Amino acid sequence: MVHMKNNGIKWLLAAGMIGSAARAQSTASGVAAFRASVQSYAHANDVAIVHELSDFLAIPNLATDAPNIRRNAEHLTAMMNARGIASRLLESPSSGPPVVYGELRTPGATKTVVFYAHYDGQPVDTTQWVTPPWHPVLRDKPLDAGGQVIAIPTTPGSIQREWRLYARSASDDKAPIVAMLAALDALHAAHVPPSVNLKFFFEGEEEAGSGHLKSILEQNVPLLKADAWLFCDGPVHQSRRQQIVFGVRGVTGAELTVYGPSHGLHSGHYGNWAPNPVTLLANLIASMRNDDGRILIKNYYDDVAPITPAERRALAAIPAVDSAMRAEVQLGATEAKNAALVERIMLPALNLRGIRGGAVGATASNTIPTDATASIDFRLVPHETPEHIKQLVESHVRAHGYFIVDHTPTPAERMAHDRIIKMTWEAGYPATRVSMDSPLSRAVIRATEESLGTPIVALPTLGGSLPMYTFESVLHAPLIVLPIVNHDNNQHSSNENLRMQNLFDGIAVYAGVMARVGDYWR
Amino acid sequence: MVHMKNNGIKWLLAAGMIGSAARAQSTASGVAAFRASVQSYAHANDVAIVHELSDFLAIPNLATDAPNIRRNAEHLTAMMNARGIASRLLESPSSGPPVVYGELRTPGATKTVVFYAHYDGQPVDTTQWVTPPWHPVLRDKPLDAGGQVIAIPTTPGSIQREWRLYARSASDDKAPIVAMLAALDALHAAHVPPSVNLKFFFEGEEEAGSGHLKSILEQNVPLLKADAWLFCDGPVHQSRRQQIVFGVRGVTGAELTVYGPSHGLHSGHYGNWAPNPVTLLANLIASMRNDDGRILIKNYYDDVAPITPAERRALAAIPAVDSAMRAEVQLGATEAKNAALVERIMLPALNLRGIRGGAVGATASNTIPTDATASIDFRLVPHETPEHIKQLVESHVRAHGYFIVDHTPTPAERMAHDRIIKMTWEAGYPATRVSMDSPLSRAVIRATEESLGTPIVALPTLGGSLPMYTFESVLHAPLIVLPIVNHDNNQHSSNENLRMQNLFDGIAVYAGVMARVGDYWR
Repeated sequence: MVHMKNNGIKWLLAAGMIGSAARAQSTASGVAAFRASVQSYAHANDVAIVHELSDFLAIPNLATDAPNIRRNAEHLTAMMNARGIASRLLESPSSGPPVVYGELRTPGATKTVVFYAHYDGQPVDTTQWVTPPWHPVLRDKPLDAGGQVIAIPTTPGSIQREWRLYARSASDDKAPIVAMLAALDALHAAHVPPSVNLKFFFEGEEEAGSGHLKSILEQNVPLLKADAWLFCDGPVHQSRRQQIVFGVRGVTGAELTVYGPSHGLHSGHYGNWAPNPVTLLANLIASMRNDDGRILIKNYYDDVAPITPAERRALAAIPAVDSAMRAEVQLGATEAKNAALVERIMLPALNLRGIRGGAVGATASNTIPTDATASIDFRLVPHETPEHIKQLVESHVRAHGYFIVDHTPTPAERMAHDRIIKMTWEAGYPATRVSMDSPLSRAVIRATEESLGTPIVALPTLGGSLPMYTFESVLHAPLIVLPIVNHDNNQHSSNENLRMQNLFDGIAVYAGVMARVGDYWR
Repeated sequence: MVHMKNNGIKWLLAAGMIGSAARAQSTASGVAAFRASVQSYAHANDVAIVHELSDFLAIPNLATDAPNIRRNAEHLTAMMNARGIASRLLESPSSGPPVVYGELRTPGATKTVVFYAHYDGQPVDTTQWVTPPWHPVLRDKPLDAGGQVIAIPTTPGSIQREWRLYARSASDDKAPIVAMLAALDALHAAHVPPSVNLKFFFEGEEEAGSGHLKSILEQNVPLLKADAWLFCDGPVHQSRRQQIVFGVRGVTGAELTVYGPSHGLHSGHYGNWAPNPVTLLANLIASMRNDDGRILIKNYYDDVAPITPAERRALAAIPAVDSAMRAEVQLGATEAKNAALVERIMLPALNLRGIRGGAVGATASNTIPTDATASIDFRLVPHETPEHIKQLVESHVRAHGYFIVDHTPTPAERMAHDRIIKMTWEAGYPATRVSMDSPLSRAVIRATEESLGTPIVALPTLGGSLPMYTFESVLHAPLIVLPIVNHDNNQHSSNENLRMQNLFDGIAVYAGVMARVGDYWR
């Protein structure tokens, strides 16, 4: 914490001198002792840790707000320097927010792990915030449970687990940064060195689309060389159990427009003669996906690997939310005969975001509409690429007699083809997924479980998508998501908040992984 | 015409006195002589006829405008009385515009024909009219060809065939009324009595949905007894050839809403698990109708009679508009391998009026939408009923696993069923179609062709729908549509107009049918 003296280098040197003899013991009693030590440190320093986070949150952090985003980067650099982390800014050749980068080498360590987080935040609609987004306030319970503002206490050890800190980026994604740095302090207090070389990569425009990320990665390949990346972003499981996520689905999207007559025709006089674009589109969609979510496009599953035994075991261990979730969204049944949600998100998905054609309701008339449009997103699993999905889908569409254009067709183009379709594609990116059986994965799971003394939720993949493939494709290192914040944090929305217990658990998790992952990684 | 002396009764008595000896001769020379006589009458009286129509058009005629719609009825009664037609108003028990009814008995005639038209008009958006809708003006050519307003000339025989009269209901549907009455005058001038007993049924709220029609019909079944009804409404063929239409398709409609999660879910985290209502709806639509317009619902075609040889001959004789129409609406191909439009409209049709679910374009998000809605119209051919269509469609939907409700389902209903769908039905009505081989049909075709000396377009059915079944179901008489106005009349829209040649041809057609249909009907 910036309030503390800069003792990091001395500590590191000291840790280096005492060498592996000081490593946390992996016996049951050693594990318990280390866990107690970290918890004790976090408890005794809770007020200082919350102050450090609150001070950091007070700096507005929109990626587009150049002066303030740089103030964030400089503030963060100071926080890192206070721990003896050799830090610097990685700038993009085309300006944009810098990456705040740091290194902490561990003498004798053979592995290097990069901790990723981002210090920028989502845009804010200030009219929806009960207190301003960059004026952090502590509340004695969640706002929607009637939480009242309270001052940060002065007595160490008095912060309650269900209190919440409200501010933009309280959860997403400044809390993990503060938790990592506090974890280092806790290791120091316990006289335990990290088990791996540590690198820190704090991005400044994740919420704005990471437009400069790839160029920064490409310019710093040797600097960023590592054996693994830990993505410290996103929430833990809805059950409040710690979660580790080994992959994300990729994503791409397309918009399809099919055409009927160039102006609406009387459905009595011309129905059954002029092609109806709504039925054409419905038939095309039906040819792509059945009611059980199975994608009917030729060769679509050729790239898809089956679920591994390790993944299947992990899925079975995840607390099932299916029944509760069905009730919450008023569904009598879910796709594929109520197949488990955790299995479903292991598969490729074709989702209709929407459809529009003609009119319904009071404005419906007995007319053959001129066109109909569908918007589709495709969720990708490992080995699928947006380019190949595009090829497969377009081949399918051509096999159904369509001539494909990427623009609104001209009258001549319409006349020249029996069927014509406009297709526009979004770029998208592939999935990533790390084997849950790999030495890295097993080491992260074990270190995390020991850090809390409770079983964790190991999720083979998120159903959703994160652009982790950008890192994988440039740096060729495995990536694992190790989140710490509460799921009910209003991420991206107004009144974002962080539950205090999640902050303290997060310190324990990061401390445990730093201390042990190198030892278990074999 | 109201300008003329009331000489109808005297004429009728005179016609009765000279009996069948005065009937128009059906030899080639007799046919030509009668045609010339009617044309000569219309030419010599063109100014008076146009004045009579213009005076009638000057009375605002919205069915909802009670005082003015009654002024129309009284004016029309006077026009009929002037021809010696015994006329009266048929009132609905629950108020509403009256039907103007009249009879003209022909001594010795064994058949009775009712001429139907309506004297009310579509609502107007006065901002879109170049001249006010109820201030009729004559123009020397169509407005969109630069037509200028000209005074109605004073010299008989000087009205040009391509001039147009602009006013609400100029075509739809006051012109046929004036043409019928002028036809009676022409018969009188030629000393030719009608060949059938004539009845006239002029409705006053056709454009407002005919809400009181059925009760008026039911209250006057004996009065309205007839061997045939001629519906004098709608336009002639786009080629400007006279058209006779022997049927209309029936119609019904439904709106279907299928449900996904009760609030939008992240497509990454819940895609492939929560049912996607857009894909459910697309799959349901695809199960109902293929790309060639074939309806896939079980037993759907059981009621459908094949096209008869007479119908097939008639279809072959209709000028094909398919290629020109495809070019006009920029279609490279039409359904069922460019099958002929006139054949297509002989079949039942399932048309998607529109579809809505989730979002497309800039507002699309990676979300599983909560619901999706489709609006469908069904075109019916003879022997199909809306009730049976509803049964077939609902059986189909149930066979696809849906529980059907007629309201937005409650949470409990949603939870109780794997799939739930809201279906709401419009009332609709069946088709009507008269055999083109019947003595009546052959008589109308022959009389019409002779009246103009040119071949006509005999259309087995309109693709569109008219509530003619109301008449058929109450009165059990065959109905044939005998329109006279130009197809490019801006019917229902602003700047409605009537082409003068269509008015004069219309007089010839109605005079010819009145004079001959009884003779040929055997």
